[in-house]
Amino acid sequence: MAKEKKLVEQITAMDQDFAQWYTDVVIRADLIAYSNIRGCMVIRPRGYALWENIQRELDRRFKETGVENVYLPMLIPEHLLQMEKDHVEGFAPEVAWVTMGGEEELTERLCIRPTSETLFCDHVKDIVHSYRDLPVVYNQWCSVLRWEKTTRPFLRSAEFLWQEGHTFHATPEEAEERTIQMLNVYADFCEEILAIPLVKGKKTDKEKFAGAEATYTIEALMHDGKALQSGTSHNFGSGFADAYGIQYTNKDNKLSSVYETSWGLSTRIIGAIIMVHGDDSGLVLPPRIAPVQSMIIPIQQKKAGVLDKAYELRDMLKDRFAVKVDATDKSPGWKFAEQEIQGIPTRIEIGPKDMEKNQAVIVRRDTREKIITPINELPETLDRVLEEMQKDMYDRAKAHLTANTRVAGSWEEFQDILNTKQGFIRAMWCGDQECEEAIKEETGATTRCMPFKQTKHGDVCVHCGKPAKAEVYFGKAY
Amino acid sequence: MAKEKKLVEQITAMDQDFAQWYTDVVIRADLIAYSNIRGCMVIRPRGYALWENIQRELDRRFKETGVENVYLPMLIPEHLLQMEKDHVEGFAPEVAWVTMGGEEELTERLCIRPTSETLFCDHVKDIVHSYRDLPVVYNQWCSVLRWEKTTRPFLRSAEFLWQEGHTFHATPEEAEERTIQMLNVYADFCEEILAIPLVKGKKTDKEKFAGAEATYTIEALMHDGKALQSGTSHNFGSGFADAYGIQYTNKDNKLSSVYETSWGLSTRIIGAIIMVHGDDSGLVLPPRIAPVQSMIIPIQQKKAGVLDKAYELRDMLKDRFAVKVDATDKSPGWKFAEQEIQGIPTRIEIGPKDMEKNQAVIVRRDTREKIITPINELPETLDRVLEEMQKDMYDRAKAHLTANTRVAGSWEEFQDILNTKQGFIRAMWCGDQECEEAIKEETGATTRCMPFKQTKHGDVCVHCGKPAKAEVYFGKAY
Repeated sequence: MAKEKKLVEQITAMDQDFAQWYTDVVIRADLIAYSNIRGCMVIRPRGYALWENIQRELDRRFKETGVENVYLPMLIPEHLLQMEKDHVEGFAPEVAWVTMGGEEELTERLCIRPTSETLFCDHVKDIVHSYRDLPVVYNQWCSVLRWEKTTRPFLRSAEFLWQEGHTFHATPEEAEERTIQMLNVYADFCEEILAIPLVKGKKTDKEKFAGAEATYTIEALMHDGKALQSGTSHNFGSGFADAYGIQYTNKDNKLSSVYETSWGLSTRIIGAIIMVHGDDSGLVLPPRIAPVQSMIIPIQQKKAGVLDKAYELRDMLKDRFAVKVDATDKSPGWKFAEQEIQGIPTRIEIGPKDMEKNQAVIVRRDTREKIITPINELPETLDRVLEEMQKDMYDRAKAHLTANTRVAGSWEEFQDILNTKQGFIRAMWCGDQECEEAIKEETGATTRCMPFKQTKHGDVCVHCGKPAKAEVYFGKAY
Repeated sequence: MAKEKKLVEQITAMDQDFAQWYTDVVIRADLIAYSNIRGCMVIRPRGYALWENIQRELDRRFKETGVENVYLPMLIPEHLLQMEKDHVEGFAPEVAWVTMGGEEELTERLCIRPTSETLFCDHVKDIVHSYRDLPVVYNQWCSVLRWEKTTRPFLRSAEFLWQEGHTFHATPEEAEERTIQMLNVYADFCEEILAIPLVKGKKTDKEKFAGAEATYTIEALMHDGKALQSGTSHNFGSGFADAYGIQYTNKDNKLSSVYETSWGLSTRIIGAIIMVHGDDSGLVLPPRIAPVQSMIIPIQQKKAGVLDKAYELRDMLKDRFAVKVDATDKSPGWKFAEQEIQGIPTRIEIGPKDMEKNQAVIVRRDTREKIITPINELPETLDRVLEEMQKDMYDRAKAHLTANTRVAGSWEEFQDILNTKQGFIRAMWCGDQECEEAIKEETGATTRCMPFKQTKHGDVCVHCGKPAKAEVYFGKAY
């Protein structure tokens, strides 16, 4: 057992050092490897398989709403980036610049896309002329690059993978509707598939996307009480489109403005899965997103018939579930620890004694609960166990969110919660950006969002005491 | 009908100007749009949907052979690119260099990956130590960038999408086996799904990949008689791995070399689909890769029940086929022309007269053949028509390949074929690189490959008369 013990010991306990626990998990679960390129990570097979499942499920949901996928260039000429003032101010300091092509110096610098609003506008200008050409509802799956100073796997890296949707509409109402629609696609996906409960709301002006009129967000709460912005959807009004010269002829034959949205979700969400569901033994993956849903682990596999039986169970299950047999020459204990570190939702133990009784043992990753099932009922039992686990994981995360969301009626309460408990703080706010900045400076907490469902906790701002304009979720964030 | 006529007239006839025909088709079929970024294109929804189907099918075939997907950084530090001599000489002149990150000048230039052998080696060095860690069988789907001087949509662009497989093995035999295996995956995919017949063989030393020991290729013949290299698979031996310090401890506890392969297929293959199957009316897509396999076009759609019937047919077909209804307010003639330009394999015409007879009319895109079918047999008929079309497309392309592959027994014959007929020329070659270069200089034809199935056409080189070493396929190429 020495080896197994060591394996688990490599993961720092969450309560001891959450940041180190996180790093240990991403490395020990083989999700990523560090690269020799500043701020860039290698996404390893187990990490990428997770992203593939996220892509497949989100892409399906996008397409159901009429989204079409496209691919635009990865480079943006400097003049194009500069056409929308707020946008260039927001992004120029954090882009990488290409200045040489082959052996020649370029006459104009090109940046590697940090996001592609500018390119989409430049393209849509060419393809939208009449009301018949609208709406344009595009998305692309790609990598983007932001020259971040400090980086952490999945949460913040120079290069990351994401999808960015860009849509163009004839009216501001339609654009607003699409902005909210896509935020809801994200929220439903996170809640139904990733078992991550959310707070949905609007960003303050300070926190909104560079160049947007409004940014909506889904905010999740991690195990350590910090918030993670998990997906955003932006309404640009006609600002970008006007700056890039996009216009269309409406039904009355008049030139009209075009209204734009964009929305993105990235590999960052993998960080959320880890930090919402993980435990001291490693990753815990929700069954609906897990690349492997069950690992069949033979016990005493050298005994006649055991390995055959393990493969028989696999064949019985493989059409309905993502299932594998661990037939390596390691001990069962080592295999259990490995399956747990990887966060595979269930393992199925099958040994000579089980075979005698014509049964198998399902063990849940989250609760370690053992479920003994007759082999002929294995598919139904596994299905039920996975569904229950999915639901329980959501419920636990929801309970954690609820327990760690507190109302602060006064500035003392606000500080006390932050100092002793973390989590989300719901409080009234005056709407003043200076006050928002002061709160951040004094406490490190930022406005996460103004929730769609507003509750009135008082009449005055929790910080400055001026009349309150909105309820805000505050929190320290990744 | 004036409008319909004009629509078709926008496509230049193939025999008049093939290059212009190609450009007309990619633009008119809405596969791409030009961008304002040097050498980069916008892949529009219809082009990208094609790529998604290619990805899905290839990815499935890769995974069946044990391939795992990963994602590595898009940037390569200059020193890393330089570690393998031939490789840096081959690629350094055609890469884009990042020299600025945010506002700071970088101490070391980073190039945007033109291909990722260097990065994979750098990563694998960290994860392979023992024979237990081998083989490593990785692939990534990504975009790469090569600073090309002249560009053409899909065929040659600065940035393009592709997959690049990188594998690492304990023995040279295993590496060679994987190299050939993946070439065969490409070949089977092209022949079975894209209906493109191929010549498979080995590249000469002059034409092989920078740094490879051997490059294998699939070569397709376009409608105009030019060749298109459609996919390549490289065996690096231990050259790269040695240069990057990858070693493993074998079962006898001795340090051993690691043997590496790589293989890639790109959006270039879309150019092959267009140029092998297209005709003067536009694109013709093989049914097995077409994003839309049948367009249902209502005739006299304003008459009661016609549009309902069209949707009824769609609902009848949609679980088995990719099928759409064109319910726009355009004329049927316009819709026919549009469906033909887009290369949708079949259209289904349904009008009041058909409804009276309880029938529908299927029209094949390639032959324009009309197949009248009782509506209750529509799914089976459509299935048969699509399968026949797929087979006929392959057979026609194969007949074109056969008819345009000629043996040249003498240098006069060689020149005569090139001047009057184009196509592939099979001829004997001395194996001398200078002779190969002289042939290219004198005729513009290059060695496409030394086919796996060698046929002896004579004893001497077709060009220099020295003793022949191999049969070679020559041709002018894209």
